[in-house]
Amino acid sequence: MSKSLKYAVFGAGSWATAIVKMLSENLDDIGWYMRSAYTKEHLLREQHNPNYLSSVEFHLEQLKLSNNINEMADWADVLIFVIPSAFIQTELDKLTIDISSKTIVSAVKGIVPETGLLVGEHFNEHYNVPFENIAIIAGPCHAEEVALERLSYLTISCWDSKKAQHIANSLSSDYINTKISDDVIGIEYGVMLKNIYAIAAGIAHGLGYGDNFQSILMSNAIREMKRYIKKVHKMKRNINNSAYLGDLLVTGYSTFSRNRMFGNMIGKGYTVKSAQMEMSMVAEGFYATKSAYFINEKNEKKADTPIIDAVYAILYDNKNPKKVFKKLTEKLD
Amino acid sequence: MSKSLKYAVFGAGSWATAIVKMLSENLDDIGWYMRSAYTKEHLLREQHNPNYLSSVEFHLEQLKLSNNINEMADWADVLIFVIPSAFIQTELDKLTIDISSKTIVSAVKGIVPETGLLVGEHFNEHYNVPFENIAIIAGPCHAEEVALERLSYLTISCWDSKKAQHIANSLSSDYINTKISDDVIGIEYGVMLKNIYAIAAGIAHGLGYGDNFQSILMSNAIREMKRYIKKVHKMKRNINNSAYLGDLLVTGYSTFSRNRMFGNMIGKGYTVKSAQMEMSMVAEGFYATKSAYFINEKNEKKADTPIIDAVYAILYDNKNPKKVFKKLTEKLD
Repeated sequence: MSKSLKYAVFGAGSWATAIVKMLSENLDDIGWYMRSAYTKEHLLREQHNPNYLSSVEFHLEQLKLSNNINEMADWADVLIFVIPSAFIQTELDKLTIDISSKTIVSAVKGIVPETGLLVGEHFNEHYNVPFENIAIIAGPCHAEEVALERLSYLTISCWDSKKAQHIANSLSSDYINTKISDDVIGIEYGVMLKNIYAIAAGIAHGLGYGDNFQSILMSNAIREMKRYIKKVHKMKRNINNSAYLGDLLVTGYSTFSRNRMFGNMIGKGYTVKSAQMEMSMVAEGFYATKSAYFINEKNEKKADTPIIDAVYAILYDNKNPKKVFKKLTEKLD
Repeated sequence: MSKSLKYAVFGAGSWATAIVKMLSENLDDIGWYMRSAYTKEHLLREQHNPNYLSSVEFHLEQLKLSNNINEMADWADVLIFVIPSAFIQTELDKLTIDISSKTIVSAVKGIVPETGLLVGEHFNEHYNVPFENIAIIAGPCHAEEVALERLSYLTISCWDSKKAQHIANSLSSDYINTKISDDVIGIEYGVMLKNIYAIAAGIAHGLGYGDNFQSILMSNAIREMKRYIKKVHKMKRNINNSAYLGDLLVTGYSTFSRNRMFGNMIGKGYTVKSAQMEMSMVAEGFYATKSAYFINEKNEKKADTPIIDAVYAILYDNKNPKKVFKKLTEKLD
């Protein structure tokens, strides 16, 4: 990959804003697509995102802002999508140009609800992007700490290791360490599953379980994640690498995680609907739970996934969280 | 093992008190040795430990309290030691009776500083207790949550699985789930090493590293623990089981962990001496760091242990924490 490849970020949430900040440490010319004309105007006027990580000041001469997804997708060579999975299809529906020759990077942490596919698979199946042109950015990484320039680590995963390294180099800086991996599918599943486990952690907390149980839940979750990913994509991987275990921990132990907050409300007795309304948003893990459950159901030999099953029963079968978790505690060890 | 075996707990700290509470759910007659005559008197008068978990009320008719270690060791069949490793030898020096035929259970989380041995090894080498009569109680378990009867899990490890099960049964209750294991050595090393990693987590926090880095540190720590234990005792084990990973997490993520607090002070610039004086106690991990470091040094082929090495350099070689951690961050991934 040439040094002069043009990068563009699609999305204007906190993680998108953090990624633009990382790229701005290295690149002179960064494309940034956002839906909202107001956000764009505000950025042009005030040099920061009005809604997320507003302490981060950008240098406008480095940024090419646009509200036109086609213009941006056409201009860039490397397209980094950082749109919540619940909204990504709505945005992609605006695309009229062919993106099959572009490098597509997903920093979306979930499943496309309309198709039940991982974001990478979705681009492959519906936009004819070959798998070697698809990459994943995985944490563990809270965007808020990127804003503070606190040391964080990313794993960039792509079958084409040169592409992975190019993207990694574009994101690396004093406060961002990167590594590369070829486990695109496994990491994307891990990123999705960890949100379910964060919901489980929240439910447990809401029900009054303590730190001792939380550590049991996390230690069972990483074993469950390993079993799950092995079924869907068998290859040699160390599940304790930071892209899997680290990301699980930073999410599962964070009181700021939206998935954990959502679970916490469920544990405290909110219905799924009222928790969603209260949060005025949908936690990624909500969709992930359904997809992960059914993907596993379809496996010839199911992976043993007591935690996913428990969260599914609560969120989709309207089962009583207290009773479901009581049973779950007997399956964990 | 017969049902009528007599259990005694040696020690009166918070973890000892929690273990007596667990036993009191099952046994009619529990021996409890404590050094302090005042603590014994207070227990007899007020039915609770004056210094630790004072909300836990005991039924005196279940307890046989004593300040005489020989009387208690003679009376009991199963001796559970829950004395900080820094003081255990001082207590054991009072023993004049032969304990070689007793079942010895260690709930000490560390290394005997005088001999540099794991507690199990220490009893084997210096008190002629055969290894099949030695068991380990491992968490993840904060004593404070046992006091609150919050669901917690223990792993009881012994080469003799019947003994392990007997001890497990004596500790199990509505709020305590137990499992057994035969990896006595591996678990005892894990319990010791996690305190070093908790110090590392504290140092990182004290230096200003955030949650993203903490998850990197923990994900590297469990990989390092696996490498380390494999060198000292090679057997098939799942390092993500709760006795290893769960215990690491409950300690490393706890702001109440004394090891983490100690590390935090070091990270904030206290000297080792002043941090110890300020805490008016010695964190288990302080001794563990030295022992773990030298045990590894003696290995023919050293395990790669960047985190232990970093903590050792700071605590024992008086190296600058900021500089040592800067270098460490380059070795983690």
